[in-house]
Amino acid sequence: MYTGQKMYKLAEKLFPICRSLTGNGVRTSLSILKEICHELEIVEVPSGTQVFDWKIPKEWNINDAYIKDPAGNKILDFNNSNLHVMGYSVPIHKKIKKNELLSCIYTEPSQPDVIPYITSYYKERFGFCMSENQRRQIESDYADETEFEIRIDSNLDDGYLTYGEIILPPPPPPPIDNFIIHEEILLSTYICHPSLANNELSGPCLAIFLADWIKNLPRRRYTYRIIFIPETIGSITYLSRNLDVLKRNVKAGFNLTCVGDDRTYSYLESRYANTLADKVIQNVLKFHYPEYKRYSFLKSGSDERRYQAPGVDLPVVGFSRSLYAEYPEYHTSADDLSLISPAGLQGSFEVMTQCIMALENNHKYKVTTTCEPQLGRRGLYPTVSRKGQYDEVFKMVNFLSYADGTNDLIDISNIIKVPVKGLLELTTLLLANKLIEV
Amino acid sequence: MYTGQKMYKLAEKLFPICRSLTGNGVRTSLSILKEICHELEIVEVPSGTQVFDWKIPKEWNINDAYIKDPAGNKILDFNNSNLHVMGYSVPIHKKIKKNELLSCIYTEPSQPDVIPYITSYYKERFGFCMSENQRRQIESDYADETEFEIRIDSNLDDGYLTYGEIILPPPPPPPIDNFIIHEEILLSTYICHPSLANNELSGPCLAIFLADWIKNLPRRRYTYRIIFIPETIGSITYLSRNLDVLKRNVKAGFNLTCVGDDRTYSYLESRYANTLADKVIQNVLKFHYPEYKRYSFLKSGSDERRYQAPGVDLPVVGFSRSLYAEYPEYHTSADDLSLISPAGLQGSFEVMTQCIMALENNHKYKVTTTCEPQLGRRGLYPTVSRKGQYDEVFKMVNFLSYADGTNDLIDISNIIKVPVKGLLELTTLLLANKLIEV
Amino acid sequence: MYTGQKMYKLAEKLFPICRSLTGNGVRTSLSILKEICHELEIVEVPSGTQVFDWKIPKEWNINDAYIKDPAGNKILDFNNSNLHVMGYSVPIHKKIKKNELLSCIYTEPSQPDVIPYITSYYKERFGFCMSENQRRQIESDYADETEFEIRIDSNLDDGYLTYGEIILPPPPPPPIDNFIIHEEILLSTYICHPSLANNELSGPCLAIFLADWIKNLPRRRYTYRIIFIPETIGSITYLSRNLDVLKRNVKAGFNLTCVGDDRTYSYLESRYANTLADKVIQNVLKFHYPEYKRYSFLKSGSDERRYQAPGVDLPVVGFSRSLYAEYPEYHTSADDLSLISPAGLQGSFEVMTQCIMALENNHKYKVTTTCEPQLGRRGLYPTVSRKGQYDEVFKMVNFLSYADGTNDLIDISNIIKVPVKGLLELTTLLLANKLIEV
Repeated sequence: MYTGQKMYKLAEKLFPICRSLTGNGVRTSLSILKEICHELEIVEVPSGTQVFDWKIPKEWNINDAYIKDPAGNKILDFNNSNLHVMGYSVPIHKKIKKNELLSCIYTEPSQPDVIPYITSYYKERFGFCMSENQRRQIESDYADETEFEIRIDSNLDDGYLTYGEIILPPPPPPPIDNFIIHEEILLSTYICHPSLANNELSGPCLAIFLADWIKNLPRRRYTYRIIFIPETIGSITYLSRNLDVLKRNVKAGFNLTCVGDDRTYSYLESRYANTLADKVIQNVLKFHYPEYKRYSFLKSGSDERRYQAPGVDLPVVGFSRSLYAEYPEYHTSADDLSLISPAGLQGSFEVMTQCIMALENNHKYKVTTTCEPQLGRRGLYPTVSRKGQYDEVFKMVNFLSYADGTNDLIDISNIIKVPVKGLLELTTLLLANKLIEV
Repeated sequence: MYTGQKMYKLAEKLFPICRSLTGNGVRTSLSILKEICHELEIVEVPSGTQVFDWKIPKEWNINDAYIKDPAGNKILDFNNSNLHVMGYSVPIHKKIKKNELLSCIYTEPSQPDVIPYITSYYKERFGFCMSENQRRQIESDYADETEFEIRIDSNLDDGYLTYGEIILPPPPPPPIDNFIIHEEILLSTYICHPSLANNELSGPCLAIFLADWIKNLPRRRYTYRIIFIPETIGSITYLSRNLDVLKRNVKAGFNLTCVGDDRTYSYLESRYANTLADKVIQNVLKFHYPEYKRYSFLKSGSDERRYQAPGVDLPVVGFSRSLYAEYPEYHTSADDLSLISPAGLQGSFEVMTQCIMALENNHKYKVTTTCEPQLGRRGLYPTVSRKGQYDEVFKMVNFLSYADGTNDLIDISNIIKVPVKGLLELTTLLLANKLIEV
Repeated sequence: MYTGQKMYKLAEKLFPICRSLTGNGVRTSLSILKEICHELEIVEVPSGTQVFDWKIPKEWNINDAYIKDPAGNKILDFNNSNLHVMGYSVPIHKKIKKNELLSCIYTEPSQPDVIPYITSYYKERFGFCMSENQRRQIESDYADETEFEIRIDSNLDDGYLTYGEIILPPPPPPPIDNFIIHEEILLSTYICHPSLANNELSGPCLAIFLADWIKNLPRRRYTYRIIFIPETIGSITYLSRNLDVLKRNVKAGFNLTCVGDDRTYSYLESRYANTLADKVIQNVLKFHYPEYKRYSFLKSGSDERRYQAPGVDLPVVGFSRSLYAEYPEYHTSADDLSLISPAGLQGSFEVMTQCIMALENNHKYKVTTTCEPQLGRRGLYPTVSRKGQYDEVFKMVNFLSYADGTNDLIDISNIIKVPVKGLLELTTLLLANKLIEV
């Protein structure tokens, strides 16, 4: 079973759980992720804690919810879809008339078949979500005087905000090239969405399998910090507890979201599109999928915006297949397991592992000889000189021309138009021949 | 009556006056402008004064001019159009044969219907200007031996070069943000053209109503220097008398010319297109009229070239509707009051007032919170989170992301693609909520 | 006879000589070049000398070579084409069967009519080169058991690598503008190819006539270093003996190769396309032949790569008509005297002399007046001011605007879009009027 299949299987297991900004759904999900990578630590932060300009809200849990008509038929049942209840709905149990019922129903009229995903985290209210079609059915099927029983069996009490954190330092011994070992790569994804597949089970599934893959790399230069947080308040909470270390250590970061569908690849720029994270992902995607979509930071709507807030300024970009808010199923019940695929997840895995390999090997190489080395006597160049054959050796010759100590490996890849993964073997060969040095 | 109409009415009043580089036409015109803004001071500089590499020429005035045929018919009469006499013609009164007459007639053969506008400021000569059609008529209607009486009743004597100057310092109290109050914005326009409407009565009409508008702004950061000069020698004269203060104080300047027609908007770059004046006008025009024409400084033919001469180096751009020399009526009798309109003048007024508002508010704003502020609890963000609604708040959120202390308001406008005038209310709101500071 | 014709005549004379990396063919060729410019010095470097990472190979000479069939017919004869023997073939004289013969025959199957040019400088072997058609003929005409006599009467012994060098310092007296007289322009070309016309007799023919032209310039600012070397090992040898002086003095360099055909002009960028050599040749070609081809350094396959090797870093670009490896006749017997022409060579001569004139005159000019000078009183500007005439004087006015001491002549040419050769007379005029200074 290849990694994409494993990721998809994990998504299937996590899909039914009702996650929210806080609560037991998050805890359960993190426990399942921990089975893949036991380095995952689960952290709890109490409700009411001040985090910068924000305060951690109460913890929300829900057992059941329904709407019953006078005949006792459940015309809406939380057990059918956890999207049916507005996230963070306060508990309610009463009888109401049709008109009042309609006023607390949320739909997406432009997509009448699907249940929209709707929340109210910071203002206490309640609501039911359903398809516009179902709402119209209720409107036409029942008389105005009909009395409905509505119930939301939820709790909104002081509790905790829960998140997961994996920190993978380089394996001993310390890196031979003496790089400062505290430099970090940040991977961030969010675990606050209920039964939605691309946005957002794909992100945690990718992140946990990346953690597992990174852990098993024989040699690493960077520490990897991989976090599983509720969106917005989670990143703000995490930043409030780790700002100094993150600002000092993080050299590149990636917000992983909507990474499971098959349609395209998307990269969302950092605030000024000028960080190491921008540089590496531009390079990898250019070769992996030249038609990838590049979005300005103006389109940012996820945690990369918090990581890039003025004063925080972490070098973080967004990575997606179809970017959130840009695909029709986004934040509706149509974002289900049929939207993501093993191949879609695998593609994202390949892009991210290529980014990581590029970062790990992104040294500034320098030729050791004055003037061009004689490649022929080392068996690196054909001894018969004839027309046409140069194409084959141009890659090496061009690499050596730009290995002048000013370009890192990604720069050279960009200049000579060869993907980094096509240069890794070459650098090994040239290092072995002592023709270049770091 | 809106401002465009007032400007047009003023142009109608000024149109018949015979202006030139110097002389009473200029004095009369400046007196009429002073009625709109009494801060206008009239300055006289004597003929013969050395101004850098130039010398102020004699003062020119003209009472009458004509060409009479033997029957006593005035076949050319200065009273019909003051374009009929070459500017700065020396006085003449004599009888000449047809051939000699033809040799002192100037026409524009490529536009046979119109009288061209022609001058000879720095070499003493005389000439009559007429349409090519009229010239051909004379050529065919009269026998070679016909004797004509020509007369130009002009004076070319030591006198003065006359210009107008308005200086509007910021109103007391001093600006609260402690900006150096001597920073200046320069507006320059020329008053040396006879009965020509777009080039150039539109410029003085715009400039004087801008002066009136600026004067009435409740709060101002900059001093405004608004000058009404004869072209070329006037700007050189003005520079020779004010170079130090201009170099020290002027932060942005605009040469206003041909600002009354309806056809397009034009911006003429400064020498390197890199000044604050370039920045603000590019920003304003991009949103106001995206199809505006941008001209390289290589096309410069007016005073902006003197302001940008090596060693002068003032940050001055040109602003026009149709740029001089680029529209067919330019420097001909067809550039009359029918070419300009209240709406055309009003458009220029709006662009310039937007430039001024942008300059006045062009601070570097900085968010006061660490990480993203919680907008919801301040009523600045919807409390129900649902798909699609983000568009409405993206403007504020994007503003806050780039309000990092490195971008001024024009930078942010450019980055987030919202015109400055669409950000002024937002900055007021955010300042009131203490979420940003200057 | 114009220069292009003289160059072509020289190429005709040099064409039959069998040149190689070393040997008497090179010596003879250099002697013929010395007849055009007697400043050419011939330098000999012994076999076995270490030159950076390389060692100078043995000297190779050849008297004769053939393949005879059993009937005594010479089916291949070196006297018909010196391309018939692989360059640096070791001596051989023996009888071999058809299969063995075929194994030491080299062809270019994709171009079955031509003899390819093939060498093996650094591994001792031998080989015959012929057209693919001839090879097929042998294959079909002779029985497998046929025995052939093959002979290569060559010598490969310790000897010398031979190159030519011309150094032309500025004529006395020292340049009046006090420029450091040791600044150099480098012209490099190679003399190691046998009977091939465009690549490479055109380069030496151009270089020697440029030397003659430069020598006769009445006034020069730069020292010119013009070298005639075997490709690759020659430039490495030359660098190893002159690296310090070259790094200190060379301000711009040109590798001249394939400069004799008529098809286009090509410029091969330096490593970062940012040297004075790039700047001048881009400027000259833009006006001379706007459709010229610009090649990235990634296409570099000649000595410009060694001059640009990390640590060498000379500001050298490539100049060609059709770039090597980009035209079909390249490195085949079709690259003969019919491929080059007097006109083709003349075009290259004109481009290079324009580059040299631009470099010689590439001062930073500065206007002497404050603000715009009055051109009219110096007879440099029309005294009657009328529509349309400005075009004629715009060149001068624009020149003066950018003669602000920050732009050199090439910069101004680029900005005002007038070729440098169109500005030389103007600068002379303005210098004479003391309106600009260096």
